[in-house]
Amino acid sequence: MNSTRDIDALIDLMARLPGLGPRSARRAVLHLIRKRALLLTPLADMMQQVAATARECLNCGNVGTSDICDICNSEKRANGELCVVEDVADLWAMERSGVFKGRYHVLGGTLSALDAVGPQELRIPQLIDRVAGENISEVILALNATIDGQTTAHYIADQLEDKVRLTSLAQGVPIGGELDYLDDGTITAAMRARKSL
Amino acid sequence: MNSTRDIDALIDLMARLPGLGPRSARRAVLHLIRKRALLLTPLADMMQQVAATARECLNCGNVGTSDICDICNSEKRANGELCVVEDVADLWAMERSGVFKGRYHVLGGTLSALDAVGPQELRIPQLIDRVAGENISEVILALNATIDGQTTAHYIADQLEDKVRLTSLAQGVPIGGELDYLDDGTITAAMRARKSL
Repeated sequence: MNSTRDIDALIDLMARLPGLGPRSARRAVLHLIRKRALLLTPLADMMQQVAATARECLNCGNVGTSDICDICNSEKRANGELCVVEDVADLWAMERSGVFKGRYHVLGGTLSALDAVGPQELRIPQLIDRVAGENISEVILALNATIDGQTTAHYIADQLEDKVRLTSLAQGVPIGGELDYLDDGTITAAMRARKSL
Repeated sequence: MNSTRDIDALIDLMARLPGLGPRSARRAVLHLIRKRALLLTPLADMMQQVAATARECLNCGNVGTSDICDICNSEKRANGELCVVEDVADLWAMERSGVFKGRYHVLGGTLSALDAVGPQELRIPQLIDRVAGENISEVILALNATIDGQTTAHYIADQLEDKVRLTSLAQGVPIGGELDYLDDGTITAAMRARKSL
């Protein structure tokens, strides 16, 4: 490589982002250098700023720029519903749908015996504290429909049984889904949970 | 979106990189925030540094951190061969192969009547000056095997005819290529340029 040390170092760092490999990192860096004023400088500045200010909400685990995030701060969202998600990306996905008006609890992963992730490594004790302390009427387990996600959901359900109303997301045919392209498990779940019209 | 303004702004900027869309930008930003000390801060610093120091080589158009790039500065590479490429990514690709020991000339694009890109918009006048001024014995046209690339190669060949030896990259079956998966054009080119063993 003839490009000088800094540019190589930048490519190496970019290649460590999820979704970018060495090839796309090179392409991105060339693009950045070409659009220096429009993109590279603003991006560098914004990264500095986020590095300085981003933090986890002490209450729910969401990412924001204050110790308590906007959702936990908003009185409007204290409707007694608590949505449990695996990580912040899931919280953002829920927020984009706009359907949920309550508050969140981000676990930070799923239980996994193989990876030695137990309840203490996740935010499960904090969840139990919140259910006891905040005025929570319903806990919605919005965990991924994977084996680890469902194992975690079962564990949490065991812990919170009899303390609060527990629900989970419905499983079935996704909107726009074509039966021909769906897996057997989804069709089975949708059939079992069929509703009368 | 509940994430605060800075994080949203960072996601928007990241989504403008080639190869990243809104979804992968969100994923990358979450990854960056999680690996703040290990990745976000070094990346921000390195971007600042590259934004401050990166520049185009005044001679060949390569990207580096000095007015004349390392290749143009190196006496070892003054072997009389000049490789003409479309852009810096192509130069880097040539350098990775390690097969070429001469110097480069980066055009910065291809001629395109549709996009109103003429010889003056590219570094073609500088190329003609270099062939006249530097001690160049061979110009290798390493342009992409696309219509625009080949149009540009023909134009440059017309300009430099009789002034210097002109060559272009061989066309044929790529190493590891399977005939069954090759397009007709490549097979035709490889057949026409067949060599005796």
